[in-house]
Amino acid sequence: MSSIKILVAQGGGPTAVINQSLVGVVLEARRFPQVERVYGARHGVRGIVDEDLLDLTQETLANLEQVAATPASALGSTRDKPDLAYCQRILATLQAHGISHFFYIGGNDSSDTVRIVSEEARKAGHPLRCMHIPKTIDNDLMGNDHTPGFPSAARFVAQAFAGANLDNAALPGVYVGVIMGRHAGFLTAAAALARRFPGDGPHLVYLPERTFKVDGFLADVKAAYEKHGRCVIAVSEGIHDETGATIAEKLAKTVERDAHGNVQLSGTGALADLLCDEIKDKLKIKRVRGDTFGYLQRSFLGCVSGVDQREAREAAEKAVQFAMWGDRDGSVAIRRTGDYAVDYVLQPLEAVAARTRTMEDALIAPAGNDVTPAFFDYLRPLLGGDMPVAGRLRAPAVTKVLKR
Amino acid sequence: MSSIKILVAQGGGPTAVINQSLVGVVLEARRFPQVERVYGARHGVRGIVDEDLLDLTQETLANLEQVAATPASALGSTRDKPDLAYCQRILATLQAHGISHFFYIGGNDSSDTVRIVSEEARKAGHPLRCMHIPKTIDNDLMGNDHTPGFPSAARFVAQAFAGANLDNAALPGVYVGVIMGRHAGFLTAAAALARRFPGDGPHLVYLPERTFKVDGFLADVKAAYEKHGRCVIAVSEGIHDETGATIAEKLAKTVERDAHGNVQLSGTGALADLLCDEIKDKLKIKRVRGDTFGYLQRSFLGCVSGVDQREAREAAEKAVQFAMWGDRDGSVAIRRTGDYAVDYVLQPLEAVAARTRTMEDALIAPAGNDVTPAFFDYLRPLLGGDMPVAGRLRAPAVTKVLKR
Repeated sequence: MSSIKILVAQGGGPTAVINQSLVGVVLEARRFPQVERVYGARHGVRGIVDEDLLDLTQETLANLEQVAATPASALGSTRDKPDLAYCQRILATLQAHGISHFFYIGGNDSSDTVRIVSEEARKAGHPLRCMHIPKTIDNDLMGNDHTPGFPSAARFVAQAFAGANLDNAALPGVYVGVIMGRHAGFLTAAAALARRFPGDGPHLVYLPERTFKVDGFLADVKAAYEKHGRCVIAVSEGIHDETGATIAEKLAKTVERDAHGNVQLSGTGALADLLCDEIKDKLKIKRVRGDTFGYLQRSFLGCVSGVDQREAREAAEKAVQFAMWGDRDGSVAIRRTGDYAVDYVLQPLEAVAARTRTMEDALIAPAGNDVTPAFFDYLRPLLGGDMPVAGRLRAPAVTKVLKR
Repeated sequence: MSSIKILVAQGGGPTAVINQSLVGVVLEARRFPQVERVYGARHGVRGIVDEDLLDLTQETLANLEQVAATPASALGSTRDKPDLAYCQRILATLQAHGISHFFYIGGNDSSDTVRIVSEEARKAGHPLRCMHIPKTIDNDLMGNDHTPGFPSAARFVAQAFAGANLDNAALPGVYVGVIMGRHAGFLTAAAALARRFPGDGPHLVYLPERTFKVDGFLADVKAAYEKHGRCVIAVSEGIHDETGATIAEKLAKTVERDAHGNVQLSGTGALADLLCDEIKDKLKIKRVRGDTFGYLQRSFLGCVSGVDQREAREAAEKAVQFAMWGDRDGSVAIRRTGDYAVDYVLQPLEAVAARTRTMEDALIAPAGNDVTPAFFDYLRPLLGGDMPVAGRLRAPAVTKVLKR
């Protein structure tokens, strides 16, 4: 019996269920008798080049299960984007430790890393099976019905907007909530699932798939405010003008870019504050409040979709099975097969690597400031069966007796 | 048998359990055969002067229970602060509808409103029993061990920081979370309950009970960052300099004040952004992120403490009992009688009205940048028995084989 060593790592932004995938790899790999060791790299590919590895074979089942239920990346993550030299150091570490299977849990940047490592390993004649396991709250991976991490973040956003809507109904005014999603509006769109009763917000939803025009925005807010006496608005951090420049970028004094050349949009309240100022100045509405959901939406402890947890685990189990029983590298993808049911397939890495899925037109209302009913059908089963539901008084009005 | 009409209203900022108190009043009042009608005023005292009342006697039990489990103020709320003329209009409405019992659920501003209405009614010879039922996420009411609404908001903050700590451990840097609480730091202090393992954040906690010095803050952050390789910081929106000017106020271009003369601190990300800029500029740390928790911490649907729910209900039940069986106006207060057990007393309105409790010195670490163990003992039982717990890998490191 051959003795196989496996390495797993986590890349990119943390999610509520990325540790389900980590534990899925570890436990499924431990079921194969030929697997001798399961290593985990600290902080993604950074830990591989630094030879900073943990021996996950020595973890207990109970502790792994507690880690699985914990948000963020238990191994640590990285934003590093390997170039050729970086990849050669990765291969050197893998070779030195006799690792034959590499699993990387991450988004489209991470899948591109897997693609490059896979190519370089092949060129170098190093026998290495490379598997990408999907993960991103942005839901922007090609070939997936949805990605692990998105349903839980969507649930957070929907619960937050359900509360913000109630708060706004109690103390009427305008509320702007800014949500993560640079290019894909799925997570922002999830705010719409907060609605239950007629008149419930969010009344307006702005997605990066459509050009954002400040004048049109103000006209929308004015109309909604006049209709409802209040207005709740969901805005993607990635909204941009017709030139493609983000509204946030236009504001920021110092533009900070990460290793992938992406502008930092999160971790600052600038966009929400700008939009609130515009509404106050132009529409003369006094009570205008803005929140930037920031890191809460991707790492809040205790807000998770059970569907998401199960699928994140399964995607990783399937990755191990594809790797052990198959003969090619690839990226696991979730496909919807029923209402609601899924299956997992292995896509070529090229199909997903460094590409970005955005919201399909059928999910966006023609006016560009809301979602369609099809989006509700798409998202509702992903949130889990135990979504909290808001109540509303139905008591009749008391007849007035004073002549005022 | 006399036929009594009761009026209940909700004032000030919404909480996760203020509707438990509303429903507590309605259901307890309906148990008394002499109570003919239970009215609710829309948007607090504003609805009384506008004669905008609902007949809650006609609500079903099932719907009331669903409303009780819903955050924010189901009747709507107000920031109105009645003067004498306003109070006279309140009394006119109460008189016109034959209302003899007035219950107002709110914070210290609302309790002051109850005090004024009570006084004016007595002066006018209008027989009116006036009861204040405590509610505030700030936990700043005198004579209360804690106030309904605070435990659930504290739970949100603790869960959020538990997640932010994990996120920050995965992608190290500095994280600043700004939390509500103008004068009282209880809610900010709740962030400390996020800690489980050694090295867990928040590593620093800044409260409005202590003067905030930017230089000392930067020195603290530098020391924590050098020790942990990262730093998670909880900051109250109400932090201020030695003159009493809030750090947020010093920044804001346009200072917005509400009817109580309070500066608007929430609904803007300015404070978090300023602190992040300071850290980037002075400490030359690149990855610095700030979140302002904003409205999420007081109205998020689905994050609630079971202890808080029960106590908010009980405080209202006791208010009705004190009103029906007692002979004086007052404010219900929660007193801790065991570990953990509480009882409810009726305080004079003057003891709580328009006064502010802040954190006792014994709860604040001498250095002024953390809480004491006594604070953990104080808060832990309030969060409920089902707080989610974060897990952490314990796997040993793999021995390095490369000579780099």
